[in-house]
Amino acid sequence: MTVRFEELVRVFTEKLEKRGVCREDAQLAASILAQNSADGVYSHGVNRFPRVCSYIDKGYIDPKAKCEKIDSIGSFERWDGHLALGMVNAKRMMDRAIELARTNGIGLVAIRNTNHWMRGGYYGWQAADAGCIGICWTNTQPNMPAWGAKDRRIGNNPFVMAVPRANGEHVVLDCAMSQFSYGKIEMTGLQGKQLPIPGGFDENGNLTTDPAAIEKTWRVLPTGYWKGSGMSILLDLIAAILAGGNTVTDIGRMTNDEYAVSQVLIAIDPSKLNEPGFADDLIQRVILDVTSSIPAEEGKAVRYPGQNSLRLRRENLENGIPVLDQVWEQIIAL
Amino acid sequence: MTVRFEELVRVFTEKLEKRGVCREDAQLAASILAQNSADGVYSHGVNRFPRVCSYIDKGYIDPKAKCEKIDSIGSFERWDGHLALGMVNAKRMMDRAIELARTNGIGLVAIRNTNHWMRGGYYGWQAADAGCIGICWTNTQPNMPAWGAKDRRIGNNPFVMAVPRANGEHVVLDCAMSQFSYGKIEMTGLQGKQLPIPGGFDENGNLTTDPAAIEKTWRVLPTGYWKGSGMSILLDLIAAILAGGNTVTDIGRMTNDEYAVSQVLIAIDPSKLNEPGFADDLIQRVILDVTSSIPAEEGKAVRYPGQNSLRLRRENLENGIPVLDQVWEQIIAL
Repeated sequence: MTVRFEELVRVFTEKLEKRGVCREDAQLAASILAQNSADGVYSHGVNRFPRVCSYIDKGYIDPKAKCEKIDSIGSFERWDGHLALGMVNAKRMMDRAIELARTNGIGLVAIRNTNHWMRGGYYGWQAADAGCIGICWTNTQPNMPAWGAKDRRIGNNPFVMAVPRANGEHVVLDCAMSQFSYGKIEMTGLQGKQLPIPGGFDENGNLTTDPAAIEKTWRVLPTGYWKGSGMSILLDLIAAILAGGNTVTDIGRMTNDEYAVSQVLIAIDPSKLNEPGFADDLIQRVILDVTSSIPAEEGKAVRYPGQNSLRLRRENLENGIPVLDQVWEQIIAL
Repeated sequence: MTVRFEELVRVFTEKLEKRGVCREDAQLAASILAQNSADGVYSHGVNRFPRVCSYIDKGYIDPKAKCEKIDSIGSFERWDGHLALGMVNAKRMMDRAIELARTNGIGLVAIRNTNHWMRGGYYGWQAADAGCIGICWTNTQPNMPAWGAKDRRIGNNPFVMAVPRANGEHVVLDCAMSQFSYGKIEMTGLQGKQLPIPGGFDENGNLTTDPAAIEKTWRVLPTGYWKGSGMSILLDLIAAILAGGNTVTDIGRMTNDEYAVSQVLIAIDPSKLNEPGFADDLIQRVILDVTSSIPAEEGKAVRYPGQNSLRLRRENLENGIPVLDQVWEQIIAL
């Protein structure tokens, strides 16, 4: 089935208000979740909504909490999320980073005790919609082995970079430090398919494209082997130190779930330093160059980061957002 | 053979002064190159020195130029490198970012028309030695195909993150967006070995570990396939827009060599916001957790980023820095 964007927002808002979230926050969280599905990231949109509600019910998410500024020095602010809804906190923190960037060129906001922001790319698009370069990342629960290790002690710590274009066709990368998400591995397995490239290790310690073999070890592969492993560790340390918050290690020692994470949101506003049109011309030059590469497979276009989200957004806003029947039934019953 | 650190600095300084570089800049460039070799990054230390000199001789590097501040807004400054030695420019820009971070929490310096900084990790260690978190990256000439492409139109754009520890054992990641460097592929081929994991594509478009097959196509593999390709594009766009400088595309259209690149250097100083010892305890907790993972291969330790550099530095400063005889002869003759 498909559901209209507005209907998703209406239903999500109602269910969140029922759980004690104020109207403003409920509407904001609802619109972020709906947008994530509209952009094709179903795993962190509609499909994730039941878990968000269950985390409120379990007490990991405090429906009444509001984030609070703890301290600041110049263009760098530290906030406490007080376990409020992660997407509401992250949206407000990127708003604040953008405000700081307007006057200081750059703004960095670090937030502790916040919750899963769902899809990091949202906050990249948000910065870009405000004409800013956006860079942000989050830590997570331990869900990946470090390079050379068998057991999961580092996070996949998604990292986002965004560059604005005046026409709204921003260049946005949203990339976790695991080569594939758990959702992708599970979905590929359910479809009886193999991953396109190795995504983890089997019981004998060999790289494999077989989802079932990876699900036996949950030894997933970091993006770029030792490189994604190293990036994950650095992103975690920087987020936790700047936020004065939990590391991946700390999060793993609390529960088997993921809450009270640390995030960094950076906005940079170079518009006052550049001639009008300079950045747009520059981006257009690079995108034209890259997308006109000789394709590795004939007829298969080379894309730039964000291109696919935009295409899906247009389709889904026009035709309605694809929603699995059983997920929608589950949500309606919440 | 081995050469003492001080002797490397003396010889490099002499050769650079001979080419018109002032004493101060020559000593600074020399010490950075010597440090890179001391830390085990021989490819961007001693072994690269002849090419640095040839770039001065070709006019890509201006031995007399000094970088200059162009514009600024708050914590964000834009500089022009005026084609001076890349490592001298990058060192000064990170110094400036650290100064900005002292008063503003964060400092971002973007520099255009600069040259190859040799090893990006140096500037990460520099920020960490000043007690700052360092983040920096550079663009490069086009040296890698975008994901899904055959021809090289994006850069490997090395990206660096560093976190300071009071004991000087900083956590530093220096990671290019190609899975392997050209140097590693060539060296592995010369030794008649295979790469440990696929590093590029053969003529039939299949991933391969065979250096000879990759050298036929030079279709090297981005770190994490589509992920490193996307990161490369974003790092390039952000550097060029903030610096008001050249993109990878622009650099590729000038010559077949690499000069007049764009770089971003960020320092963040969280020390005023954290209790003494907070960050050190946090880092120690994470490093102990990660390095005590169950090893994938028995007896093979799991390491944290930067650990190996530090070990090599200690060995090389004590025993002398390994230098290839023919490279040293070539340098002495310069």
